[in-house]
Amino acid sequence: MSRHTYLTMKTPEEARALWFDRIDALGKELSDEKVPLSKALHRVLSRPVEALRSSPAFHGAAMDGVAVKAEDTFTASVRKPLRLEIGRKAFWINTGHPLPVGCNAVVMVEYLNVEENGKYVVMEKAAFPWQHVRKLGEDMVATEIILSPGVEIGPYELGALAAAGVTSPEVFRRPEVAVIPSGSEIVGLDEAREEDLRAGRVLPEFNSLIFSAMIEKAGGHAHVCPIVPDDVERIRAAVVAAVESGADLVVMNAGSSAGSHDYTADVIAGMGELLVHGVAVMPGKPTALGIVEAAGRRVPVIGTPGYPVSAIVAVEEFVLPLLARWQKRGVVRRESVDVVPCNPIPSRPGMEERVRVKLGVVEGTCYAVTLPRGAGTVTSLSRADAVIPIERDREGLDAGQPVRAELLRPWDQIEGALLATGSHDNTLDLIDSMLRRTHPGFRLTSAHVGSLGGLLALRRGQCHLAGSHLLDEESGIYNRRAIREHMKGMPALLVQLVDREQGIMVLPGNPKHIVSFDDLCREDVQFINRQRGSGTRVLLDYELKKRGLSHARIRGYRDEEYTHMNVAAAVLSGRADAGLGVRSAAAALGLDFISVGVEEYDLVIPLRYAQDARILALFDVVRSEEFRRHVQSMGGYGTDRTGEIIWEYDGK
Amino acid sequence: MSRHTYLTMKTPEEARALWFDRIDALGKELSDEKVPLSKALHRVLSRPVEALRSSPAFHGAAMDGVAVKAEDTFTASVRKPLRLEIGRKAFWINTGHPLPVGCNAVVMVEYLNVEENGKYVVMEKAAFPWQHVRKLGEDMVATEIILSPGVEIGPYELGALAAAGVTSPEVFRRPEVAVIPSGSEIVGLDEAREEDLRAGRVLPEFNSLIFSAMIEKAGGHAHVCPIVPDDVERIRAAVVAAVESGADLVVMNAGSSAGSHDYTADVIAGMGELLVHGVAVMPGKPTALGIVEAAGRRVPVIGTPGYPVSAIVAVEEFVLPLLARWQKRGVVRRESVDVVPCNPIPSRPGMEERVRVKLGVVEGTCYAVTLPRGAGTVTSLSRADAVIPIERDREGLDAGQPVRAELLRPWDQIEGALLATGSHDNTLDLIDSMLRRTHPGFRLTSAHVGSLGGLLALRRGQCHLAGSHLLDEESGIYNRRAIREHMKGMPALLVQLVDREQGIMVLPGNPKHIVSFDDLCREDVQFINRQRGSGTRVLLDYELKKRGLSHARIRGYRDEEYTHMNVAAAVLSGRADAGLGVRSAAAALGLDFISVGVEEYDLVIPLRYAQDARILALFDVVRSEEFRRHVQSMGGYGTDRTGEIIWEYDGK
Repeated sequence: MSRHTYLTMKTPEEARALWFDRIDALGKELSDEKVPLSKALHRVLSRPVEALRSSPAFHGAAMDGVAVKAEDTFTASVRKPLRLEIGRKAFWINTGHPLPVGCNAVVMVEYLNVEENGKYVVMEKAAFPWQHVRKLGEDMVATEIILSPGVEIGPYELGALAAAGVTSPEVFRRPEVAVIPSGSEIVGLDEAREEDLRAGRVLPEFNSLIFSAMIEKAGGHAHVCPIVPDDVERIRAAVVAAVESGADLVVMNAGSSAGSHDYTADVIAGMGELLVHGVAVMPGKPTALGIVEAAGRRVPVIGTPGYPVSAIVAVEEFVLPLLARWQKRGVVRRESVDVVPCNPIPSRPGMEERVRVKLGVVEGTCYAVTLPRGAGTVTSLSRADAVIPIERDREGLDAGQPVRAELLRPWDQIEGALLATGSHDNTLDLIDSMLRRTHPGFRLTSAHVGSLGGLLALRRGQCHLAGSHLLDEESGIYNRRAIREHMKGMPALLVQLVDREQGIMVLPGNPKHIVSFDDLCREDVQFINRQRGSGTRVLLDYELKKRGLSHARIRGYRDEEYTHMNVAAAVLSGRADAGLGVRSAAAALGLDFISVGVEEYDLVIPLRYAQDARILALFDVVRSEEFRRHVQSMGGYGTDRTGEIIWEYDGK
Repeated sequence: MSRHTYLTMKTPEEARALWFDRIDALGKELSDEKVPLSKALHRVLSRPVEALRSSPAFHGAAMDGVAVKAEDTFTASVRKPLRLEIGRKAFWINTGHPLPVGCNAVVMVEYLNVEENGKYVVMEKAAFPWQHVRKLGEDMVATEIILSPGVEIGPYELGALAAAGVTSPEVFRRPEVAVIPSGSEIVGLDEAREEDLRAGRVLPEFNSLIFSAMIEKAGGHAHVCPIVPDDVERIRAAVVAAVESGADLVVMNAGSSAGSHDYTADVIAGMGELLVHGVAVMPGKPTALGIVEAAGRRVPVIGTPGYPVSAIVAVEEFVLPLLARWQKRGVVRRESVDVVPCNPIPSRPGMEERVRVKLGVVEGTCYAVTLPRGAGTVTSLSRADAVIPIERDREGLDAGQPVRAELLRPWDQIEGALLATGSHDNTLDLIDSMLRRTHPGFRLTSAHVGSLGGLLALRRGQCHLAGSHLLDEESGIYNRRAIREHMKGMPALLVQLVDREQGIMVLPGNPKHIVSFDDLCREDVQFINRQRGSGTRVLLDYELKKRGLSHARIRGYRDEEYTHMNVAAAVLSGRADAGLGVRSAAAALGLDFISVGVEEYDLVIPLRYAQDARILALFDVVRSEEFRRHVQSMGGYGTDRTGEIIWEYDGK
C-alpha cells in the first residue's frame, strides 16, 4: 500500500503568505467592467468614483414658504413687520424646488402672515442669506471622489452613485473559480440512492454546494465541474479543462491528504509547482497549495480535504482571502467576543485549532459549549454560534478561563438564546422551533451532557435551565433529591415538561427475542449504553439493581452514546442488539420497543430567571395547545402536567 | 396655501407597536414554498427541518489502515505482537469506506507491519471497539430536527440540508413589496437631462433603487411601480394597482410630509386607516403608517419622506422589522461600540435623532466626527462608519463624553483607518483610494475642519494626522510656527504633501474682470469665503493686510464654505462672483483661475505614530511614482518635495 508524504508543515499564515507571493508574481489583475445600477448590488468598485454631477444641482428650498432676497428683509422686526409683495419680492416655494433668480433665502410658511387675499406676505424677522436653502453642491460637487475602490456596493452606495449621475459604475470582474469534486465513490446529490448510501457504496457530493455559496458571498463566481474519479490522469485532465475554460482559481475537493488514493498534490506538482502540502491547522491539515500551468496560463490551485469541516477551513483560510485580495478589499473578520468554556478543550500542540461552540449568555457572561469536533460533522457547522481559535503553542484551553471567540451569528441572536444544558429530549428541539416562530429573536440552545451534568452546570451558573430525569432509587420520585443534593443555595422551579415512556429498543421484529432486563445479560446480546450521569443510565442501573443483576454481565455496558437518537441509530445499524431509550426515538427510526415504564422529564429553572422574558416566552410555548398536540403526535409522551410548576425548591 | 397636519407624534417604538398590532390582526401568514438547494442561499426556513437520512449512513473508516474486530486484537502487545491474516481477520480500508461486516475498529496504517508479501499484518497494540470509526448517525440521525424555522440558509446550512437528504427545503415565500415613487418633478434616473436637472425642473428618482436593495437584503422582493405625479387620484390608483397585483406591503415614497402637495396621509386615510402620521425621529419625522383596503384585500402601507436620509430611516425603522417579523426572525441589530464625539452634537428634545459619523481609532479610543446632517445628503449615508442614536429626552451630546454608536462597517475596517482631521485637499481622497488598492484593509478617513482645527485635534489626541497649510505672516514659512504654538509637548513630523497654486476662482470668461485682491472689495463683487482657521482664510487675511485692505469692504466675507470644491460650486452657481481656492478645484468645475501664488500643503504626523503600519503604508503611497503622476494630472500641484520629511518638531 503506497502512501504519499506531506511537505514540511506550514502555519496557515506562512502558507498564505507563500502562496499569495507566488500569485502576486503572476502579475494578474482583475479587469473591470461596467454594470448598470440595477445589477450593481454587492459588486466591488474597481476604481475611485468621481461625481459626474453636483448634488443638489441647483439652489433649492429646504422648507415650504416664500423665497426672498435676504437683504430685502433686513429691516423686518416684531415692532416693524415687513410686508413683501408676492410675485415681486417674495415667491411661494415648496421644499425641493429651485429658488427664483435673485433669491437667496426661504422664510418658512409658519412665520408668515398672508394679507390682502394673498397679495402680500408679512414677516416679523429678517432672513439671513442662504437660510433654509439647500445649496448647489452641498452634498457633492462634480469631479469629487465620492467612493473608493474596494468598496462593496450596498444600498447606500447605490444612492450615492445615482445622486452623482454614475449609472454604470466600474466594478471588478467577478473572479472565476472552478470547483472540481473528485472521488470514485462520490455521486451527485440527486443521484444518491438510499440503499447505495446505506451500504457505503456511494457518498453524496455536497461540498461543492457549500463552496459555491461561500465563493458567491465573497464576490466570486463558482463553476462546479463534473465529478472526477480517483485517477491521476482524469484529475489532471479536469484541471486542464478548468484552466482552459478561463478559471482564475481552481479548487480541487478531496484527495489532498497523503493516502494511497490522494492524487491532488501529485497532480499539482506535475502541472507546475506544489508550494504547500500540509498546514498546521485542525481541522484542515491536508490542504495543498500551488500554481498549475495549462493552455499557456498559470493559475493558482488549492487542494482541499474531503471532510466538510476541514474543507471549509481550507476555503476560509485560503480561498476567501485570495478573492478579497484580488478585489482589493480586506477580508471581513468576524466580530469577536470573550467567552468562558464550560468544559476543558484539548488541542494538539504544534497545530492551530478551530473549535466550534454553542454560546449562551448567563447573567452577563457568555459561556461556550463545544460541539462534536469530527471533521465530517456537518451539523457542527450549522449548529455553531462561534469558533474558538486555539493557538499553535497551546495544549488546550481550561474550563472557566475566558478566551476570544469569533461569532458566526449576530450578537443579538446569541443574547436572545436560552442555554439549556442537561439531558437530551427531542421536545427541546420542538421548543426551539416554536419559540423562534412565536418570539422571533428568542431561541433555545441545548447542550447534551446528561441530567446530572445539567444540574452541575446550573449550580456553576453556566446555563439558564436544565432538562432532567433523575430517579431517586429510594423514593421513586424524580429530580427533587438530586436538586437538593447538587443545587444547594440556588432556589429553583421544577417544571414538568413531559412524561415519557422508556424502554428497550431492538431491531424490527425483535430477532433476538429480547423482552426484559434479564435478556440484556445474555451472551448473544450486545448492548449500547448511555453515558454516566444521564437519567437513562440511572434508570438502567436502578432496574438492574432491583433485579439483582450485575452490569458486568452486560456486553457493551461501557459502550456509550450521548443521545437517545444515537442509541437508536446504533441498534438500527446492528452495532448493538439493544439499547435503553425513549419510545419516540425508537419510533423515529422504526425500531421495536419493549416498554419498561414511564418516567418524568422535567425542566429545572433557577428562580432568579423565572421572570426573564425568554423564560416567560418558553412557558408560553410549553403551555400552548399546539405544543401538546405536537408532542403527542411524536408518540410515547404524556402531557397531562406539561408546563406545570410541580415543585418550588427553596435552596435549602 | 393649504397645509395638512400631523397626527399626534409617536416615538418610533410606539409607532411600530401600533402598526404591527394592526397588521397581526389581519391574520396574515407568509405561505411557504419548496426551493431546490441551488436556489436556497439566503432564503429563510419556514418550518423545522428533520433529517431525512442519517449521516454517516454507515459505519466507515475514519483513518486509512485495516479494519478488524476489536475483540480479535485484545492479546496484541509489544512483547507479543499479533499477526492477522489479510482478507480473513483484517481488511485494508481507506478513510470514508464502509467497514466489512463483523468489523468494529480500524488500526492505522502507521501502526502496522506488513509481512509475507502482504499476506499478514502485525500490530503491537490492541484496538478498542469503534476506534477510528465514524459511526452511523454520528452527525445526524434520520428524523432529528437539524435546523429551525426563521434560520437564513447560508453555506453551512446548505451543507447540513444536503447531508440530511433535504434537497428542497421549505422556505417562506418572499414578501412582495410594491414601491411607488411619486412627485410631479420626479423623473427616472435615465431620463434626467443635465440641463433640466441644473434648472431644477426635474429631480432624478433613486430612492426606489436604495429601497429595493434594502428590501432584497432583508429577504423581500421589491417591485418598483411607475412614477406618479402629485395628484391624489393618481396616487390612490397606484396604491390600488399595487394591492391588486398582490403586494404584501406598499411603500409610498415622498409626499408623506404635511405640505400642500403631500397627499400620502390623505390617500391612506381615504383607503383605510391612517394609524401614524409623524414619528418623533430625526431624520424620518414625516412618516405615515396605516392599512389600506383594495380589491378585497387589506394591506399595510407606509408613506416615506422624499429626502433619502429620512426615507432610509423610515425603511430601517418600519419596513425591515416588518419583513423580519413576517419571516419569523429577529431584526439583525448592528454591532455597537463606544465612541467619543470630537465635537458637541446638538439634538432636538422630544425627538430621537440618528446622527451619522465617521470613526477613527486613535490609541485605543474610537473618535467620532459628525457628517453633514441634512436629510438630503446622500453622501452622509455612503461615507458614514456608524450611526449614533440620541435619545428623545436629551438635548444633545457633549464632545469628549463616550456614547454608543451602531457600526455600519465591520470593525476591522474602522481599525484599519487613519483619521486625518484638518485642512481639506483633493489629494487626500487620492491617498485613500490608492491606500485601499495597495494595502487592502487600510483606509484614510478625512474630516474637514481647517488647518488650525486639525492641529488642535492632534493635540487632543483625536486624530492620527492633519493636513495643514498655515502661513506665518511674519516669516512666510508654513506650519512650523503654528505647530510650535498649538502642539507643545507633542513631537511630530512635518511631511510635505504638495505645493499647490492658490488663486481667485471666477466664472469662465471672467465676466466681472476680477484680476486682484483689490477687485474683491468692489461693490459689484460678491465673495464666498472659507471658514475661520482654514489656511485659505489665513492666506486671504494675509494678502488683504499686506495691501492695507479691510475685510469689512468685501461683500460676502462672512459667507463661509468648508471646502475648496464647495467654494468653486458657489462661484459656478452664481451665488458668488469670486472665491479663493486651489487651482485643481477651479479646473474640476471649469472655472477661470487668477493665480495668487504657491503655498505649501503638509501633513503633520505625531512622532509616536511614525512607525504605525498604516502611516508606513501612507508613506509608501505618497512616495510612489503613481501618486505623483496622478497629482500632476490634476493640475495646479507641485510635487518636487512630495513625501519628504521637511521638519522634525521636538515638542518644545
